Amino acid sequence: MSNIHDNIARNNGTITLYHAPQTRGTGVLVLLEELGVPYEMKVLNFKAGENQQPEFLAINPLGKFPTLVHNGTVVTEQVACYLYLADLFPEKGLAPALNDPKRGAYLRWMAYQGSSFEPALIDKAFNRSPVEATQLSYGSFDKMLKTLFDQIAKGPYLLGEQLYAVDILWGISLKWCRMFGLITTNPVVDAYIDRVISRPAFIKAEQQDQALLLAQESE
Amino acid sequence: MSNIHDNIARNNGTITLYHAPQTRGTGVLVLLEELGVPYEMKVLNFKAGENQQPEFLAINPLGKFPTLVHNGTVVTEQVACYLYLADLFPEKGLAPALNDPKRGAYLRWMAYQGSSFEPALIDKAFNRSPVEATQLSYGSFDKMLKTLFDQIAKGPYLLGEQLYAVDILWGISLKWCRMFGLITTNPVVDAYIDRVISRPAFIKAEQQDQALLLAQESE
Repeated sequence: MSNIHDNIARNNGTITLYHAPQTRGTGVLVLLEELGVPYEMKVLNFKAGENQQPEFLAINPLGKFPTLVHNGTVVTEQVACYLYLADLFPEKGLAPALNDPKRGAYLRWMAYQGSSFEPALIDKAFNRSPVEATQLSYGSFDKMLKTLFDQIAKGPYLLGEQLYAVDILWGISLKWCRMFGLITTNPVVDAYIDRVISRPAFIKAEQQDQALLLAQESE
Repeated sequence: MSNIHDNIARNNGTITLYHAPQTRGTGVLVLLEELGVPYEMKVLNFKAGENQQPEFLAINPLGKFPTLVHNGTVVTEQVACYLYLADLFPEKGLAPALNDPKRGAYLRWMAYQGSSFEPALIDKAFNRSPVEATQLSYGSFDKMLKTLFDQIAKGPYLLGEQLYAVDILWGISLKWCRMFGLITTNPVVDAYIDRVISRPAFIKAEQQDQALLLAQESE
């Protein structure tokens, strides 16, 4: 990863995903597989702290995944990466077009993941008392989750009959939370998660992540 | 606000902003003024708890601002409202088009506000210990803020020469934090904030908010 700024400038046209297995980056990997578009993956060893090395911090000073580089532009933040990639390939149908009546709900549930769900989840996972409800971005954990589950219950996908990138985001987020016992699911939500994670894109990305982890452990 | 679902269904074409003065909704009010498009404002009294009344919870179960309704769709979450409105009026030039090289950075800095800045700020404002850095969405408060300030320093606006909706979001967020002493600014950041909040759209929205607050206090 030497001369990283040269690399960014040179990468015109290539989508480069800086990735560490089993991080927030995995969802973007699934999205790239679902889109079926070419991409280049640069794998970092999170446990070995490669995300805190100067080469990577020069791209994303927060040292976080996912981090994308495309046409000389760095895109970070999970929600931004999802929005960016899905809009980049309108012919794949994973984002409602700007004039599609579903666009507003699509953006709402994308932003909800980063701005309401994640902060609420982190407070819960670490047993932190929520701050005053009037200041919080998410109200209360239970209301936040019920609001999401009520939307999922309309099904089969978050915005109705069609799967969009936002379903990949949620399917994977909720699968991860269910696995670690951070949320109590119900059969409707379980079926939603399973609809997303049974897709070939998820299976392929997860197998790839497992292989990467194994390789990193033997480094 | 009776028959709220009828109201949502009937509002085709009209942008309705459910708003309480001096909440996260104010930024969306500024954006609507900056766009110069017609909108309808439904004002709620936050201190009187109107955001927790069933009529409003039927629209946004989290009882939060901003909440938009347009063409029968509810849009919540500050970042989603900004993205939605700016894309709705491409001729106003407040959002880079989908094929604009600035689009990735635009989405990155939008998402950063909701997913990294706000959670970090809430921890800091309420003196909460951050959780383990590996789990956090924002790394550390200082890194999070420095990353943003470094981008602002490129100036004059976040993405360069042109003001976009993302500058309105940040100008107002940072102005609010500066006012309450939550962040330490520097002359470059101060100049950036002042560039945004000296615009007629901000001044008009703030005056309107003040008048609404006064009216609510005398209710």
